[in-house]
Amino acid sequence: MGERRSLWMFGLESEEPSYEQRVETAAALSSRLGVELVAPRIPAVDELELRPPRISPPLRLSPFCRQDNWERAYHSYGNDRTLHGPFGRYPNPPDVVAHPRDEAELEAVLEWCSDSGYCTIPYGGGSSVVGGVTPPADAGPVVTIALDELDRVLEIDPVSRAARIQAGVFGPALEDQLRPAGFTLRHFPQSFTGSTLGGWIATRSGGHYATNHTHIDEFVETVRMLTPQGWWEARRLPASGAGPDPNRLAIGSEGILGIITEAWMRIQARPVFRATASVRFPSWEAGYEATRQVAQAKLWPANLRLLDPALAAASAGLDGTQSVLIVSFESAELSQRPEIEQALSILRACGGTVPDDEVVVDDAGRATGRSGAAGAWRNAFIPSGAGLTAGLGLIGNTFETAITWDRWPELDASVREATARVLEEVCGGGTVNCRFTHVYTDGPAPYYTYGGRYRPGMDPVAVLAELKAGISDAVMAAGGTITHHHAVGREHRPWYDIERPELFAAALKAAKRAVDPNGVLNPGVLVDPVT
Amino acid sequence: MGERRSLWMFGLESEEPSYEQRVETAAALSSRLGVELVAPRIPAVDELELRPPRISPPLRLSPFCRQDNWERAYHSYGNDRTLHGPFGRYPNPPDVVAHPRDEAELEAVLEWCSDSGYCTIPYGGGSSVVGGVTPPADAGPVVTIALDELDRVLEIDPVSRAARIQAGVFGPALEDQLRPAGFTLRHFPQSFTGSTLGGWIATRSGGHYATNHTHIDEFVETVRMLTPQGWWEARRLPASGAGPDPNRLAIGSEGILGIITEAWMRIQARPVFRATASVRFPSWEAGYEATRQVAQAKLWPANLRLLDPALAAASAGLDGTQSVLIVSFESAELSQRPEIEQALSILRACGGTVPDDEVVVDDAGRATGRSGAAGAWRNAFIPSGAGLTAGLGLIGNTFETAITWDRWPELDASVREATARVLEEVCGGGTVNCRFTHVYTDGPAPYYTYGGRYRPGMDPVAVLAELKAGISDAVMAAGGTITHHHAVGREHRPWYDIERPELFAAALKAAKRAVDPNGVLNPGVLVDPVT
Repeated sequence: MGERRSLWMFGLESEEPSYEQRVETAAALSSRLGVELVAPRIPAVDELELRPPRISPPLRLSPFCRQDNWERAYHSYGNDRTLHGPFGRYPNPPDVVAHPRDEAELEAVLEWCSDSGYCTIPYGGGSSVVGGVTPPADAGPVVTIALDELDRVLEIDPVSRAARIQAGVFGPALEDQLRPAGFTLRHFPQSFTGSTLGGWIATRSGGHYATNHTHIDEFVETVRMLTPQGWWEARRLPASGAGPDPNRLAIGSEGILGIITEAWMRIQARPVFRATASVRFPSWEAGYEATRQVAQAKLWPANLRLLDPALAAASAGLDGTQSVLIVSFESAELSQRPEIEQALSILRACGGTVPDDEVVVDDAGRATGRSGAAGAWRNAFIPSGAGLTAGLGLIGNTFETAITWDRWPELDASVREATARVLEEVCGGGTVNCRFTHVYTDGPAPYYTYGGRYRPGMDPVAVLAELKAGISDAVMAAGGTITHHHAVGREHRPWYDIERPELFAAALKAAKRAVDPNGVLNPGVLVDPVT
Repeated sequence: MGERRSLWMFGLESEEPSYEQRVETAAALSSRLGVELVAPRIPAVDELELRPPRISPPLRLSPFCRQDNWERAYHSYGNDRTLHGPFGRYPNPPDVVAHPRDEAELEAVLEWCSDSGYCTIPYGGGSSVVGGVTPPADAGPVVTIALDELDRVLEIDPVSRAARIQAGVFGPALEDQLRPAGFTLRHFPQSFTGSTLGGWIATRSGGHYATNHTHIDEFVETVRMLTPQGWWEARRLPASGAGPDPNRLAIGSEGILGIITEAWMRIQARPVFRATASVRFPSWEAGYEATRQVAQAKLWPANLRLLDPALAAASAGLDGTQSVLIVSFESAELSQRPEIEQALSILRACGGTVPDDEVVVDDAGRATGRSGAAGAWRNAFIPSGAGLTAGLGLIGNTFETAITWDRWPELDASVREATARVLEEVCGGGTVNCRFTHVYTDGPAPYYTYGGRYRPGMDPVAVLAELKAGISDAVMAAGGTITHHHAVGREHRPWYDIERPELFAAALKAAKRAVDPNGVLNPGVLVDPVT
């Protein structure tokens, strides 16, 4: 549905830079870095020579199944398309890409896959950064089931503030359908424009709210999920205490238990009242101590995002020693002046300073937070200029974790040290910085961005894998989680296997076997293939 | 450990009324009701003739295993001891009651049970109102494992505000151990004095907070649980997005997957600032509409408890048409005056009225909320006079559910109608009233209390079962959950089986089989026995 997305960058085909723009960028970077960067000529989709499909859909499924180059190339990857797409590298494309238009078609194609024992990959927006939708090698024929035809808000309950929404809807289209009724889901992961509700639920996406209800989990009333054994759907309820929560086994199941088709979601009245401030602290330590104190006061700001000194310098123009904390409140009902004043009283007592022009209280529904340090941060966080450096072999990435406050300073130190060390070994140096994307009463969720020095001839895929390994080892050794909101997929498996209790994996495999007896759904994700 | 609890009422042996007091109560009630109520002479524990134990523990386990009358009688029941205890009725006592004093002893006794195939019942405080710890009939030999020796706070992390706490600690002892450090768990279910941390976690207990983080679930950083296959323990983290949450399968597992021995729990700084008001509304409808609006404004009051007109009349002296909403805020850091003023602005706009002497803002750490309507409500909610009517055959009980706001008025009407109808059929009449114990943005958790007219010769056990069936059918038909916080146990199974997705039950059984291959743990609870 909608505009076709790019095969080789995060964004739409229509947003792709031209070959000339990429060559220009390569030339500018070449002279800046003193090396020769070459922008690859990206093969046209018709030029791609993909492995011929090993299977074809039966006639009854063919109206909604595709086997053309674009479909198979696009669904070969999640966000790692940005590494492989520029070179037209598609060694392991799915054989069939199904786009069921209703539940009956979904049932039919899943039944075909399960009966035939074909590896089946549920596909939402394709923004996975952990290989969550990549066909595994040596899995035999692969059918990718894309949910993009199931893209509607089916029902809005304004009294309970909830909506029944199909899983394949992308972020912007979802908001477009809620807006006329005065509502919003307010789930804005960084991938917002290129990811879907079903994907968010399947991967426990982290969204807009920096405190309190951070993960998509908390906004789910109930999930509707098709398994090879049939439908899995709990009652729609605000809360229950009847046994372990069935939704909590579906949420985060990353496509191994079933295919999420819709969910009743808690929605928000569109905010009218806002209050925002950017508070500076003399150091990183002072900033995170203040953040802890305001989190523990349970004021539950919508935004509570701390930038370390390097990031604050780069994106908010600070002096390289100061950290900056963006704190924002929003409400559809009440002025947020009292709340921000309470937050500022704590932050100031912790040594924070707030220039007058950085405190904005808006009681009239005007947009705020798009200027000043907060605005700079927002613009830095939302990807732009995608594609200009495609295929140049630059090394950069992000990782994220969560840790309790008592162990946080040590984790930060050891993870930075490990990242710097691995960057030195692999790239001859680089940079790393940190922000908090989400904050809990008992600890932060730090989000690190790193960039490696360019070395001619480096293989970015191998280098990124080496960096991922070294960094993930450090995160695990420091007691963190392998992911706060990027999910596990195939790439985080080695560390996830350290993190999760062995017996939980046994229980999860058993549960999978119960609902997916032929083990067709996303094999290798979360647990080893079940047969 | 500590004082011995009563065999026939909720409370301690030392709190039991005397035979004379019970006779006096029976006489007073007899003349009030115009029937003859007889207080039974309750057999002394030594007089009980229990079925001889069918098994005995091996020598290595005997130092912490008991087979005496009191142990076997006490552990025959949860809170249904109040029905059977007054008559000394113990047809199916456990054969052995183990009180492991450390994890090694727990491992030893569970291994013995699993290897021998003995039905094994984890036992916390014994306050279950759903038969969650009652030995099933025809299960063969039964070993109850009581956790009461594991009753310590092992570690406090003041920086993250978390504590590692053993599962067998009762509410008051838990609070006693946190208090010197300035902390509190603030989980105060109605059973607080007679229930344990492990029981709360195993049953998804609902606690002090009426909004936002209501269930114990939200306070768990991680659970440590022994299964017959070994230990299940996830990392201690403020949050994670790595697969389905392992803790969420342990939480609410009601003893069928393992025995919870300890948990890292999020704790609170002791509140200093409080603000409380009791707001009257002209009707039940006006009260719950206002409650919805204040809940959806996300002010997250600690208390937001609405009493229907009958309850407001009985416990707060109102006129029988008005409802009353108790709204309270508390904080360790900040005056709650702004928050209560914001709440009152919404409630007044909804037609609520607040006598001046019912609004208390305390910024100095004095206790509030123990006078006025709020105090009357609190006193009515906390059981008192337990045991005085033991064995008189009076019919009264509670049930609770949760439902989204759009379906709430219909649920309330149909459940009240069904309750009245069943009371009429079974008891010839009775009363029913309702309060909200917890409130969510998308719906309330109503809690109903009913009392049946006394009919000479009634069998309270049969009558209560008949009432439970009729009422539960109505709750399920109206779309509610069979339990918001009372758990499933054995008594809610028929309706739980309607509520949970069939495939979730299949997954749960498979998970149980993976960790409890001999199916010894609490068979029949949540799912049919697994063999």
